Amino acid sequence: MNGILYGVGVGPGDPELLTLKAIRLMLACDVIAVPQKPDRCTALSIAAQAAPEILKKPILTVELPMTHDAALRERAYEEGADRLIEQLSKGKTVAFLTLGDPTVYSTYGYLRERVASRGFDARFVPGVPSFCAAAAALGEPLCSDRESLHIIPGEANAEDALALSGTKVFMKGALPDRKAAILSHGVKASAVEQCGMPQERIYRDVNALPDDAGYYTVLIAKE
Amino acid sequence: MNGILYGVGVGPGDPELLTLKAIRLMLACDVIAVPQKPDRCTALSIAAQAAPEILKKPILTVELPMTHDAALRERAYEEGADRLIEQLSKGKTVAFLTLGDPTVYSTYGYLRERVASRGFDARFVPGVPSFCAAAAALGEPLCSDRESLHIIPGEANAEDALALSGTKVFMKGALPDRKAAILSHGVKASAVEQCGMPQERIYRDVNALPDDAGYYTVLIAKE
Repeated sequence: MNGILYGVGVGPGDPELLTLKAIRLMLACDVIAVPQKPDRCTALSIAAQAAPEILKKPILTVELPMTHDAALRERAYEEGADRLIEQLSKGKTVAFLTLGDPTVYSTYGYLRERVASRGFDARFVPGVPSFCAAAAALGEPLCSDRESLHIIPGEANAEDALALSGTKVFMKGALPDRKAAILSHGVKASAVEQCGMPQERIYRDVNALPDDAGYYTVLIAKE
Repeated sequence: MNGILYGVGVGPGDPELLTLKAIRLMLACDVIAVPQKPDRCTALSIAAQAAPEILKKPILTVELPMTHDAALRERAYEEGADRLIEQLSKGKTVAFLTLGDPTVYSTYGYLRERVASRGFDARFVPGVPSFCAAAAALGEPLCSDRESLHIIPGEANAEDALALSGTKVFMKGALPDRKAAILSHGVKASAVEQCGMPQERIYRDVNALPDDAGYYTVLIAKE
């Protein structure tokens, strides 16, 4: 019988934000799969702080390049799916670790699609998304009552997003552009860099956010 | 010394989706606070399945009416804040349980604001939001790559929301209106009723969603 693939959300950084289900599946699986080399994989580092026993399991690296080259990406996904399927075909259960929640801007979605289309059971295990943890760190609700909440990916136009009514969360992408757009719109905005990690930094005023803040900075603009 | 108030997200329904931090704080606190009477409080029922010991603690009901009457709501929040502060002033640590994540459409935000403005330490403890769990149950990413994700509250206009580019998640609100708007727009949509609960139902085609589906139905429309 084939094994099952689980895309396990490990949350945004604080190892205490893993769910009971994530812990159970990581401890029960045969193979841990990670999207970067184990020694520089943030998701693995977070998960191992919550459940150090997982480091004794076989760890499969399914490296997915951060590139805009569609052909290169496509090949990496196909090869990644092949490597996962190789394990599943042997009856191994695989937990693929992913930062935050696996349904929100996760490369797991692309792998899962390919694995599932070849007839394997491949599931999502929800986690706490970074924007919820960032709002918690700031001590401010993301949205209340009648406000919409817009999650804006790295490549979206900041001006268009700022024209939307409600709260805007900017994920990844070029910070200087976003910061400039926010300042020119004159809206209240704050940011959290490396949320939940030891290096976490909170910026209650977006003016103070350095242009070279980390890739995982979450920028929240209010209406 | 005053106690601390924690707004603890218990996730959308599955008791295994509580975080380690939620469990630790619920077990360590002096008082559990809940937004409905304990015998009909969904958040308490979920939390108690994950950590039955919490039912031995004092349980404080801070009832918050589901009403559009602003004066009635305001009075309930003020009274609720008073009752929480009474405990905090005695040095008691309070865990206020809330469904999903406390920064996303949670009444905890209103209580916290009042408690914090009176000088008390009142925090958010993130949880898995219902829309992440609904997407996981459907086996579909919420958003990938360049797609925006829009979380639309109960009272927003469905037509306006459907005009946005990216994925739209409709939370709470009048289902027949949303369903009609989605059908007239001809977009692909699916829904999860009572996500993570024993009564969970998945509708891969929004046509099949009954008009009287439960209040906690999450409706996801793709572009």
